[in-house]
Amino acid sequence: MTPSPPTSRAGIRFGTAYYWEYQRSPDLKRDLDLMVQARIDTIRVGESVWSTWEPRDGVFDLDWMTPILDAAHERGMKVLLGTPTYAIPPWLQRKHPELAVVRADGRRIPWGARQEIDFTSPIFLRYAERVIRAVIGEHGGHPAVLGIQLDNEPGLLLIHNEPVFERFKGWLAERYGDVGRLNEEWGLTYWSHRLGHWDELWPPAGNTTPSYDLAWRRFQAELTSEFIGWQAGIVRGLVPEDRELTTCLAYQRPALNDVQLSEHLTVTSGNAYYLPQDALTRDDSTEVAWFATGPSGLLQAADRMYASKQRRYWVTETNATSIAVSQLNLPPYDGQLRQAAWALVARGAEMISYWHWHTLPYGAETYWGGILGHSQEPGRVYGEIAALGAELERAAEDVTGLTPDADVGFLFSHDDKWALTFQSPLTLDGRNPDRDAYERIQAAFYRGAIDAGRQVAFMSPAQFKRLPTVVAPALYCLSDEMAAELESYVRDGGHLILTFRSGYADEEARARSEIAPGPLRALAGVRYLEYSTLLEPVPLHGLGKQDTATFWADALEVEGAEALAFYDHHHFGRWPAITRHRVGDGTVTYVGTLPGRELTAELFKSTAGTGLVTTDAPRVTVHSAVNDRGERLWFAHNWSDREHTVTLTAPATEVTGDRQPLEPGPLRLAPFDVRVVK
Amino acid sequence: MTPSPPTSRAGIRFGTAYYWEYQRSPDLKRDLDLMVQARIDTIRVGESVWSTWEPRDGVFDLDWMTPILDAAHERGMKVLLGTPTYAIPPWLQRKHPELAVVRADGRRIPWGARQEIDFTSPIFLRYAERVIRAVIGEHGGHPAVLGIQLDNEPGLLLIHNEPVFERFKGWLAERYGDVGRLNEEWGLTYWSHRLGHWDELWPPAGNTTPSYDLAWRRFQAELTSEFIGWQAGIVRGLVPEDRELTTCLAYQRPALNDVQLSEHLTVTSGNAYYLPQDALTRDDSTEVAWFATGPSGLLQAADRMYASKQRRYWVTETNATSIAVSQLNLPPYDGQLRQAAWALVARGAEMISYWHWHTLPYGAETYWGGILGHSQEPGRVYGEIAALGAELERAAEDVTGLTPDADVGFLFSHDDKWALTFQSPLTLDGRNPDRDAYERIQAAFYRGAIDAGRQVAFMSPAQFKRLPTVVAPALYCLSDEMAAELESYVRDGGHLILTFRSGYADEEARARSEIAPGPLRALAGVRYLEYSTLLEPVPLHGLGKQDTATFWADALEVEGAEALAFYDHHHFGRWPAITRHRVGDGTVTYVGTLPGRELTAELFKSTAGTGLVTTDAPRVTVHSAVNDRGERLWFAHNWSDREHTVTLTAPATEVTGDRQPLEPGPLRLAPFDVRVVK
Amino acid sequence: MTPSPPTSRAGIRFGTAYYWEYQRSPDLKRDLDLMVQARIDTIRVGESVWSTWEPRDGVFDLDWMTPILDAAHERGMKVLLGTPTYAIPPWLQRKHPELAVVRADGRRIPWGARQEIDFTSPIFLRYAERVIRAVIGEHGGHPAVLGIQLDNEPGLLLIHNEPVFERFKGWLAERYGDVGRLNEEWGLTYWSHRLGHWDELWPPAGNTTPSYDLAWRRFQAELTSEFIGWQAGIVRGLVPEDRELTTCLAYQRPALNDVQLSEHLTVTSGNAYYLPQDALTRDDSTEVAWFATGPSGLLQAADRMYASKQRRYWVTETNATSIAVSQLNLPPYDGQLRQAAWALVARGAEMISYWHWHTLPYGAETYWGGILGHSQEPGRVYGEIAALGAELERAAEDVTGLTPDADVGFLFSHDDKWALTFQSPLTLDGRNPDRDAYERIQAAFYRGAIDAGRQVAFMSPAQFKRLPTVVAPALYCLSDEMAAELESYVRDGGHLILTFRSGYADEEARARSEIAPGPLRALAGVRYLEYSTLLEPVPLHGLGKQDTATFWADALEVEGAEALAFYDHHHFGRWPAITRHRVGDGTVTYVGTLPGRELTAELFKSTAGTGLVTTDAPRVTVHSAVNDRGERLWFAHNWSDREHTVTLTAPATEVTGDRQPLEPGPLRLAPFDVRVVK
Repeated sequence: MTPSPPTSRAGIRFGTAYYWEYQRSPDLKRDLDLMVQARIDTIRVGESVWSTWEPRDGVFDLDWMTPILDAAHERGMKVLLGTPTYAIPPWLQRKHPELAVVRADGRRIPWGARQEIDFTSPIFLRYAERVIRAVIGEHGGHPAVLGIQLDNEPGLLLIHNEPVFERFKGWLAERYGDVGRLNEEWGLTYWSHRLGHWDELWPPAGNTTPSYDLAWRRFQAELTSEFIGWQAGIVRGLVPEDRELTTCLAYQRPALNDVQLSEHLTVTSGNAYYLPQDALTRDDSTEVAWFATGPSGLLQAADRMYASKQRRYWVTETNATSIAVSQLNLPPYDGQLRQAAWALVARGAEMISYWHWHTLPYGAETYWGGILGHSQEPGRVYGEIAALGAELERAAEDVTGLTPDADVGFLFSHDDKWALTFQSPLTLDGRNPDRDAYERIQAAFYRGAIDAGRQVAFMSPAQFKRLPTVVAPALYCLSDEMAAELESYVRDGGHLILTFRSGYADEEARARSEIAPGPLRALAGVRYLEYSTLLEPVPLHGLGKQDTATFWADALEVEGAEALAFYDHHHFGRWPAITRHRVGDGTVTYVGTLPGRELTAELFKSTAGTGLVTTDAPRVTVHSAVNDRGERLWFAHNWSDREHTVTLTAPATEVTGDRQPLEPGPLRLAPFDVRVVK
Repeated sequence: MTPSPPTSRAGIRFGTAYYWEYQRSPDLKRDLDLMVQARIDTIRVGESVWSTWEPRDGVFDLDWMTPILDAAHERGMKVLLGTPTYAIPPWLQRKHPELAVVRADGRRIPWGARQEIDFTSPIFLRYAERVIRAVIGEHGGHPAVLGIQLDNEPGLLLIHNEPVFERFKGWLAERYGDVGRLNEEWGLTYWSHRLGHWDELWPPAGNTTPSYDLAWRRFQAELTSEFIGWQAGIVRGLVPEDRELTTCLAYQRPALNDVQLSEHLTVTSGNAYYLPQDALTRDDSTEVAWFATGPSGLLQAADRMYASKQRRYWVTETNATSIAVSQLNLPPYDGQLRQAAWALVARGAEMISYWHWHTLPYGAETYWGGILGHSQEPGRVYGEIAALGAELERAAEDVTGLTPDADVGFLFSHDDKWALTFQSPLTLDGRNPDRDAYERIQAAFYRGAIDAGRQVAFMSPAQFKRLPTVVAPALYCLSDEMAAELESYVRDGGHLILTFRSGYADEEARARSEIAPGPLRALAGVRYLEYSTLLEPVPLHGLGKQDTATFWADALEVEGAEALAFYDHHHFGRWPAITRHRVGDGTVTYVGTLPGRELTAELFKSTAGTGLVTTDAPRVTVHSAVNDRGERLWFAHNWSDREHTVTLTAPATEVTGDRQPLEPGPLRLAPFDVRVVK
Repeated sequence: MTPSPPTSRAGIRFGTAYYWEYQRSPDLKRDLDLMVQARIDTIRVGESVWSTWEPRDGVFDLDWMTPILDAAHERGMKVLLGTPTYAIPPWLQRKHPELAVVRADGRRIPWGARQEIDFTSPIFLRYAERVIRAVIGEHGGHPAVLGIQLDNEPGLLLIHNEPVFERFKGWLAERYGDVGRLNEEWGLTYWSHRLGHWDELWPPAGNTTPSYDLAWRRFQAELTSEFIGWQAGIVRGLVPEDRELTTCLAYQRPALNDVQLSEHLTVTSGNAYYLPQDALTRDDSTEVAWFATGPSGLLQAADRMYASKQRRYWVTETNATSIAVSQLNLPPYDGQLRQAAWALVARGAEMISYWHWHTLPYGAETYWGGILGHSQEPGRVYGEIAALGAELERAAEDVTGLTPDADVGFLFSHDDKWALTFQSPLTLDGRNPDRDAYERIQAAFYRGAIDAGRQVAFMSPAQFKRLPTVVAPALYCLSDEMAAELESYVRDGGHLILTFRSGYADEEARARSEIAPGPLRALAGVRYLEYSTLLEPVPLHGLGKQDTATFWADALEVEGAEALAFYDHHHFGRWPAITRHRVGDGTVTYVGTLPGRELTAELFKSTAGTGLVTTDAPRVTVHSAVNDRGERLWFAHNWSDREHTVTLTAPATEVTGDRQPLEPGPLRLAPFDVRVVK
């Protein structure tokens, strides 16, 4: 088969995972014809069935995919083909039981799901390379193939197998040189932990040392990146150069640094699952989960995907209907699938691919709903998706190459997440640690930015960009270098928002021995010698608002800053809750607590000129992005179940719906509606 | 000793478990004389003390039981003698540590309680047979012996010992022939699980495949049935033919199919534990536990026992006072013991035996209360039981051979319970699966039938009987054959009530690929392409009631059926919640949600003529049963703590109390009262 | 160095744990000078750093401590020097992995914290002795050394290592003689547990026998006592005779009998941690934790410490600011540190030592706050402590040798705690056992005594003293001998308060076979044949109060006693809830339930003459103690955040504050205030 380049086409790729091989009575023609009717132009195939590709050790069955690729090609559809390495076949697990991942507690994970293998093992890699070469070598050059997905949702587990732990010692030795330095840096005098040589390092199971844990998490994420990079190297040699290399990222995976891993990819792709129905009409959840809750949760997931490579990305999985488990079936309300898709488009998605085409009759995911249900009969969901496909097709020229606007930068880092998982600053029940504290704080400030009508770009310290406002929520392990860069940013006119815990520790997750907030003290114009958990919300006033302070209070003493908000409390009332400091041409806002929703939004209120579409309606968001022709599009979502109105400040053309010209003035948004104008 | 047949006597057997050997200062004569005073005529002995029967390997001490049997015989009492196999002696666990059950996680259960042995092991069976032959051979022929209890409450654990897993592979091979067929039926293409040969089957620990789990549960229940059958075979050869063979069933045991197991018994016996005090005056619990809560819970337990053999049964264990654990001591209020006993009698119990005679001073069950407490001094509970004994004795002729009436059949099956445990459709907390979903749905509909004044017979698909109404709550794995039988039943005039999840899957617990509800679609006159979890109750109206819908909503589209009830909701409102379809001479009611209590009862409201006793008082139930003289008795319970009145529609005689003739008209029921008339 | 006797000085020792070796940039001079300014006169050093003392097997580094001891000596400060045995170095855990403690489930505790070693192992003891001899031999005679702390917070774990279990069999054999007697005493006929010989004893993992568990707990506590005694023997030979021997006790440790262990010490020392902020202004928690909640919790902790040796004690650890975990940072409000210290002084503390000097930058306890925070900059907390140090110094003569007054004795015993942990009488959620039931009941009655203005002395049965009132809350395993002693106490005029569960079992934790309350029946003048859990509070009236009964109700029948309080309930109403019985010159109050707070306090209301300071203000406590000059001091605490007034009944001198003479009349207490007068 002669390879041909993937069609470079206008618009958004509209796709679905397609598992022909999972059907009890497959009908390839009917399936693909139904897809064409729904304007689905991309399918994702083959990543889960190693035991079908290679039913016995070294015996391959590769031909069954050819009719699928051909049928796609005939219809002008493209295919994302997966390497099947995340689910090993029974014969391999039986031949090499030592491949099973060992958990922290020393016990092997029993086989029966997927991703339960030590993918760092040379034994595994030998088998993995063979099947990759067979499958991708056979099909990677097919003209329908758009790109290769390398493994799937990597980083599910921290791998405690003995060889991995041995390798960790070497990793440490390389970084610290000798154990004396490790003793010093990690503070191993404490509790009699000083090592005499590397072999005395204790395994992670019983570890209580924060610096150790941070190193272990960094190391594990590196293993994952390295594995995907290794696959990329093999596949690159097997397919034409224009083929994309990607993998589907589940961003909550514990052994994942998406920024680092994405360096091995030509395009980032990931999951954008969300809780639909009422959860998507509101934005009041504080749940941190593998799925997004609320509009701000969905938007945040999109903005994080953009950040991996600071480029447009593919959504390889998003809700068709119910997601995951048998006890939680929540098909989206009418309009919500369309809302979610336009939100992702607004925030830089260049592919939206549903998981999956049809609900499976068996297996762990029997109740993960497809575009077609168990009966494979097109229903309401198919109808919604087909209408959306047509709408996106009509808007194709307008949405080509859309780059999302952003005026607020969110600094984020995996180090902080890991460090604050190990030593959480928050408790939800007054006793136990909230292991999601970092993400909970980040999400609260993100929602505040959205509530204030602003648009966010996430950036790791290495990706720092001087947006008008930059937030560093709970950036616990901030380096001196980053602190210096932040100061320069402020001096040059930036608005920096710091929060409690920002800069409290150093890059070894040690509490700093300077007066807090350490390297940010002079910049923020405040210091604190103590801080307190708030077991109950405390009234908080300031910035013209009455609200509450929750979870935390830094005992801020101003050193040049101006106090902006105050606790109403006999003890905490002596310290300001929020301060502002003018430095050079810029401003630093320091937030010593987690304010309520209203006050958090107030922090982000900007005097920047408003755009084409403005609103102050509740549960209505407006975003903008610029297409490859330099036109700016405005996306107005009414997430609620009531009608709302936004204001058009100038004449415009509608990109959604009937694509008519619009006069300035009020623009009606029906419940669950979204309207895009340019 | 010459065997003599057990006295075939009128009335209800009134009994207690009697553990003479557990007393610190036993007084056999006093105990049995106190029993005689309380009209206790049956004792249950010896099932827990293998280490007393056989203190050392092969050394038996059998004589200690003889005085007990003789003393019973002298008083005309009968004895249920147990084989002691459910609790192995220390010497055996030490000699054969490999007998300890291995849990799913691969770890052996530590010895120290009972039932922690792999009873399928040939080693165990050799020792078990020897002790059975010794004990039953010695005492089984004693004239006092009414029957033999084979083991005790079997099926506590799923046994994961290696030989059992090996046997499972053979069990599968026998059923599926070759692995190719297994791959096909279980859908093992999914997640790369296709097997090359049987040895590649993964152990249950990590299993995520629904069909696998269902097979594993069926297999485990078969092991339990087989073990009891094996004991029955041995014992049958040791005792006179008229001796009953039974075992005490705890119906919630995970490895139990009571219908299948009871084929090896001459009479079913089981536990009827319930939560007394306020829990028994109300009926508002949704708890699923090893004890019944509320009157409908107790009645349901009784009806389920009847179903095992579709015959009258023995209650070998029921509350004397507190049950189980030290932290939950709930002696019944005055009258509740009497209420419970009469309820069991009304629903087919031919023996009521209390567990146990005296509370034990030591051991795990120190706080499981007996008829006598720790002091062995007769108190209030003894008084209540003695009065009840006298009342039952006076009513003996009337209650002989009572067969309970039933006008509503409840189809039930272990397959559905197991399948919906593995893939639960419900969540109680909005996230996690409710592992008791099947029983919770069943119990809600059962309570509805009771609230509507109807009487229930449970029946497995194989026991199907054409009662005026038949309910199939959440009969998930319904076979095509059963669906056809249901259709025939309806065409011939039956009223079938189907619920959400009924017929959704097939006998492999695979979701069916037809349009739901699959084989019931034409019969129900509805179809649905989607369904939704209801995270919060949704208002529901219909059948003249305002109520709520909870947990679930099928998106019903009528295909010939009539819509009866509707959701008040912007999204779900488009679909009916309950429909009715006339088919032939019958009717099918389809219930797409779990309605509130009032509407559920409305589904069961019958136009059938009322009987001798009628009521619409809250927390009052009326049941009827026919004795061996063909007389119908009516049992009116006032479970509440307030006086209520029922109506006598014709002259009658009271069976309880002073056994006087009664005129038609109001009949007073004191709080916690029960009155039986004929 | 020539040993010199520790300065025998007036006043309270004021101290802190000082970990110079944990600092990243230590400044010994600055630290000790700051301490001197704050009147800190004692430091606690060296107990956690075996790997610093002995960095390699047999290689010691002992000199680093000398400058610290010298610097202290120069400033007239004293030092408590620890043996470093509770945290073994990495080289030892690697050389002897078998030292890791095995948990009940058979799995070794992974290394990485501390106290995870089987300290009974001869191998461990050999290494421990060597390091003790090195460190204490080198430094124990230094003139600054006040005493030696032996290990730290022992008894953290129940040790299930095989050699320990083997030893347990021998321990049993010694106590019971032969297995036949064990079978008899423990009731091993039950569930077929009769042993043929000692080797058949099952390990604790699966045990369900209460008597077994009690023996196992007693045995484990003995191991801990023995270990500390072993260290005491070694150290005694290494240091001058005047050196104190102690260890820091964490009273909630599961393998600890503090009374027994303290026999090996010259002075008891322990932790007095408490939850500050709002928890200390209220007294409404029912939480049982390793920290005290509420003023009564703190006072109870102090009184329990006094009880260990029935002598004054050292508080080796108490809050400087936040305690323990990263998610719970609660620095005390202004005044609370002072309140806590004066409360401890009032109740017999002769040293108050804060844990610790500075917050550590690393390690598991990064967020356990010191007097100085991470920045080591003196702040509010340092200021509070320095002011307190000055106040205590001014009051030195007055507080020397203070012996706390007590008029209520609380009988307590570890046996009862262990027995009621294994078979809890309470449930908090209506189903599961409350494993803290014993402490919860004890705490409720303790708070009642405090609410009634009384002062408590805890005493084990062996420490029994005839105080005016004696309470025996839930003294479940009461011996016949103790019962007889209680009777004698009552006959001679004492007031005994018995509660539900008191005397219900015997010393083997067997329920007694006599009519309850067994050996207390005649004394109490009541009996009961049943009891009930109260799943919901039941109204209760009596003693002039309307209150509620919770958790439990004994079905009391009076046999000579007078009924004092009654349930308002259709069922329980027939039995009194509280009774009083005159016996000889004394009185027995029997409390068959856990009354609400008001009624519990009423039980303790005394007609005894009031003292120098009286109050009936809420959240105000008054305590008294007598100093070595025979003067009585009165301590009035206002724990609340509002001003309150107490009454001075005679002229007095203030010991706190400005130490002025005071006229009789009202004495103002500011919020969070404490005033001491004499």
